[in-house]
Amino acid sequence: MVVAYDGTHYAGWQIQPNGLSVQALIQARLAQVVQQPVVIVGASRTDAGVHARGQTAHFSLSEARDTSNLTHSLNCLLPPDIRILQIEPVHESFHARYGALGKCYSYTLCTSRAQPPFSRFYQWHYPHPLQIARLQEGAQQLIGTHDFTSFANSSTQGSASKNPIRTLTDIRIVEEPGLLRLEFFGNGFLYKMVRNIVSTLIESASGKPYNLQAVLAKRDRRSAGATAPAQGLCLEKVFYSLGEGGQMNDSFKLNVVK
Amino acid sequence: MVVAYDGTHYAGWQIQPNGLSVQALIQARLAQVVQQPVVIVGASRTDAGVHARGQTAHFSLSEARDTSNLTHSLNCLLPPDIRILQIEPVHESFHARYGALGKCYSYTLCTSRAQPPFSRFYQWHYPHPLQIARLQEGAQQLIGTHDFTSFANSSTQGSASKNPIRTLTDIRIVEEPGLLRLEFFGNGFLYKMVRNIVSTLIESASGKPYNLQAVLAKRDRRSAGATAPAQGLCLEKVFYSLGEGGQMNDSFKLNVVK
Repeated sequence: MVVAYDGTHYAGWQIQPNGLSVQALIQARLAQVVQQPVVIVGASRTDAGVHARGQTAHFSLSEARDTSNLTHSLNCLLPPDIRILQIEPVHESFHARYGALGKCYSYTLCTSRAQPPFSRFYQWHYPHPLQIARLQEGAQQLIGTHDFTSFANSSTQGSASKNPIRTLTDIRIVEEPGLLRLEFFGNGFLYKMVRNIVSTLIESASGKPYNLQAVLAKRDRRSAGATAPAQGLCLEKVFYSLGEGGQMNDSFKLNVVK
Repeated sequence: MVVAYDGTHYAGWQIQPNGLSVQALIQARLAQVVQQPVVIVGASRTDAGVHARGQTAHFSLSEARDTSNLTHSLNCLLPPDIRILQIEPVHESFHARYGALGKCYSYTLCTSRAQPPFSRFYQWHYPHPLQIARLQEGAQQLIGTHDFTSFANSSTQGSASKNPIRTLTDIRIVEEPGLLRLEFFGNGFLYKMVRNIVSTLIESASGKPYNLQAVLAKRDRRSAGATAPAQGLCLEKVFYSLGEGGQMNDSFKLNVVK
């Protein structure tokens, strides 16, 4: 399933003891519709307040179902801040998290003096002068395969010995009147990595003399900037390969890396 | 002042006994800042749930104030769903409502099967087939100077003998994937006129055989369609002329009809 959600009122994607998660809500409604207990596995554990336009999750049922009816029934039961965009059958070997080849996250800042009301839950208000050239220069230094320890918060969920090497294939910077959007493409992201990179790049573009290569080399979280607010972050898309024998459905091909 | 607001949680622009209005809130905060009672007059009395990107209002103070400080102080006191975009001094003859030469309203529909969570408060979800050619044809018949009685609800606020002749200078139809936006330009709009026109055009594009010229000629509210939901409507801009002697400020020139 491909899922969009407004993360404002949720404690994140992943089921957890304190607060309502997107996963818990979808799982409960899905179990109601299919009349059997079901576990959904999401591609990304987005944090509290983080949004998604294209989260992907998989689940198994005891028998085949009409996916269009399933989508419709789920959307009728779910609150309007969570929408199932599509459900497609996949090969039983498909795994939403382990099968993901890459992801795209966007981070959006409102740079106007006054933040328009319509974007207040979806953008970080940053009405201060920015040197875009420094932002671009910093982004260029982060693209590639690096040890991103300096940009990773210690996660309470993941294993501490997790491999901190990741590949950022691209960081695109989009400027529009009153708006700055950074798009991150990579094979995977450490805990709070995008928000820590955003904050460091923005501090750098605001005049703080960061040397991003030195920050990476230090492998020390304290060498980089703070964590940018959750509300600006959105999981845009998860990419998959076709796998052996083309067992993936056409709709999932839309998410396939070219 | 030019004001943007998310109308979701308000009983409309105009002060009224039942419910919190945008005008009441701005007026109260402005009085707090300038330490004197003050009345603000808005260009348009938007309804409950209707939004604005460019509402205009005027007010008078006993002495001149730094408009930049005033804007900042007001935005600090107002909730984030109301933002003062700018305040500029104008000639004492300026009147936000009577001085308006024209207005632009937009009405946005979400045409996707599932409505993305981010637009749920700002678009009317209409996931049904539409014949855009019929929509365009209907819009063309409404452009011009007409008696719009068939599209006007009786207002409890305005005078019953109000002149029902209005000029629609243009209706622009913008199609994007999953989205349909109608932009209305006119010299003035009767009570609920835009929402009644939208609903009638959408019913027509859904297959109901309306003859818009006949509907206009009947001058009977029952001859047109229902009222489209408030959430899709947004007051985009109010237009003013330069007036005699160019007494209007540069910023208001941005809103001047070419």
